[in-house]
Amino acid sequence: MTTYKETGVDIEAGDETVNRIRSSVRNTFTPGVEADIGAFGAFFAPDLEGVEDPVLVSSIDGVGTKLKVATRAERYDTVGQDLVNHCVNDIAVCGAEPMYFLDYYGVGALEPSTAEAVVEGFAVACTKNECALVGGEIAEMPDVYGEGDFDLVGTVVGLVDKADVVEGDDVAPDDVLLGLPSTGIHTNGYTLARTVLFDEYTVEDRPPELGGESVGEALLRVHRSYLRPIQALLEADLVKGLAHITGGGLPGNLQRILPDGCEAVVDYDSWDRPPLFSLIQREGDVPEADMRQTFNLGVGLVAAVRKADAQQALERLEAIGELPVPIGRVAAVSGDER
Amino acid sequence: MTTYKETGVDIEAGDETVNRIRSSVRNTFTPGVEADIGAFGAFFAPDLEGVEDPVLVSSIDGVGTKLKVATRAERYDTVGQDLVNHCVNDIAVCGAEPMYFLDYYGVGALEPSTAEAVVEGFAVACTKNECALVGGEIAEMPDVYGEGDFDLVGTVVGLVDKADVVEGDDVAPDDVLLGLPSTGIHTNGYTLARTVLFDEYTVEDRPPELGGESVGEALLRVHRSYLRPIQALLEADLVKGLAHITGGGLPGNLQRILPDGCEAVVDYDSWDRPPLFSLIQREGDVPEADMRQTFNLGVGLVAAVRKADAQQALERLEAIGELPVPIGRVAAVSGDER
Repeated sequence: MTTYKETGVDIEAGDETVNRIRSSVRNTFTPGVEADIGAFGAFFAPDLEGVEDPVLVSSIDGVGTKLKVATRAERYDTVGQDLVNHCVNDIAVCGAEPMYFLDYYGVGALEPSTAEAVVEGFAVACTKNECALVGGEIAEMPDVYGEGDFDLVGTVVGLVDKADVVEGDDVAPDDVLLGLPSTGIHTNGYTLARTVLFDEYTVEDRPPELGGESVGEALLRVHRSYLRPIQALLEADLVKGLAHITGGGLPGNLQRILPDGCEAVVDYDSWDRPPLFSLIQREGDVPEADMRQTFNLGVGLVAAVRKADAQQALERLEAIGELPVPIGRVAAVSGDER
Repeated sequence: MTTYKETGVDIEAGDETVNRIRSSVRNTFTPGVEADIGAFGAFFAPDLEGVEDPVLVSSIDGVGTKLKVATRAERYDTVGQDLVNHCVNDIAVCGAEPMYFLDYYGVGALEPSTAEAVVEGFAVACTKNECALVGGEIAEMPDVYGEGDFDLVGTVVGLVDKADVVEGDDVAPDDVLLGLPSTGIHTNGYTLARTVLFDEYTVEDRPPELGGESVGEALLRVHRSYLRPIQALLEADLVKGLAHITGGGLPGNLQRILPDGCEAVVDYDSWDRPPLFSLIQREGDVPEADMRQTFNLGVGLVAAVRKADAQQALERLEAIGELPVPIGRVAAVSGDER
């Protein structure tokens, strides 16, 4: 492993590039980073003050073929942010605070300016999430990756006190489902989106439906982090379950937090579907059921809250600039459906 | 992220394959695994009893183009082991005990029997290292990976009490360097090894130098874990510094643990160089300096010990079945070389 902090990034480029990357990475460091030790591993001392029963929560992920859009648009500063935020969301919905992140960058032939943009993306999102970028590996494998192709993998490690784990096990009928807007397709459904859109458009095309945005810009919108709104709800003890809407869409991901005997009743007309989804559906003649199973359709995070808490939760979120929408409710599964 | 424990592995294969994979993964679980919670992240409760100042030590890595040898030999049960052991070694040399591992498997088109063999490899090595395989992601990306190609990435997370971190900062002139045999090329130098050997041989060829082993078998030998011998040395307080010999060979990796003013003096004739390295050197007409900078040459781990402790360290290692060899010593850098 290349620990950025110790050995620098193994890029055969000018010192300036390497120094800029090092500086970006160092800006992500939080007090837990043990920057001066560890020749082979990355060190992090968790802050356990007040934590009775510490549980580490981790997630490893990639960004799928959103990478192919980045390559097509020759824009590399966003995919690293997508990956960090995706991973952070996955542990934040469990109630965990992110501590640190490690990245892997597999590539056919390393292009220093691309590498700098990618790592800068990791660093930008890590800083925003107060999650230290403690290490990474850059692997040049010309026989595995084609020219211009690459893959990004990230692991986030976070901490939660066991009593504060958000599981959704007390979610019950009549609970309200609050949705938070997604910023775009996030990191799921790109195979379908690319197939449909690039059959018709280039990345530079600006179909009128997108209101001035190009196809590339719309597809590369950064998968946002929901850490702050999640923290706001958790601090106020206003949430029973949280779902990050990734592959599988609302049906698939809500199912992950609902106890047996409960189902989600989502009113798909309760929010405005962003135009990119409508464009994909129309151009690809995609059935509505497939749209729902594949895309977030404009809702990237769902919180299940007690009906009595719903108004307070909405206000709490609005107070920090969020735009929550009640999108449905939890219902008991009727006998014959179980 | 697909958490194996919760959602199973997302393979469109017969239930039997999925069940076998699930069962392999479950066999790796240690008491720290919180198997029943966590829909989006992987949970692990570290055992902090007796740990005064806990530090998490992590490493992310791949196995490089050893994957191409696996593909060529159509043998997929070893590369997962290589990856786990490589990562475990990287944190064990820092003094950390591995707790858990997460894997990423990026592939063009998923072949269930290959996936089963790969995950089985992760599970086998995780079990041997008492390191739980808590989660993984399988990403099918036909546009990124060519037919039959794939990449594997792993992250290990371990724990060490800060006072027990092995840094090498007290390594000093006259310390003895003890080497432990490697099992083969481990996971570094495969681009050179493949270029040279596959120019002359197929994976099935058995050059007489390899004593009956095929080229494929020799190249796919599993990168061993050094966790047990490292633990034996640490328990007896017999080690000042530990180096995992990966990319950069003995010179590059010993340098990582030597304080300023110290250099390693290695006697390259003090151990028998395994025939695979000699074969590569001869067939590729590779200069000795390049061999030393690229390969472990038969020594996969080096421990720096006090001269007075060397005999005891050797005996301690031999008592657990290891075959340690004194390979050199630490010397003061002479003034004009600094």
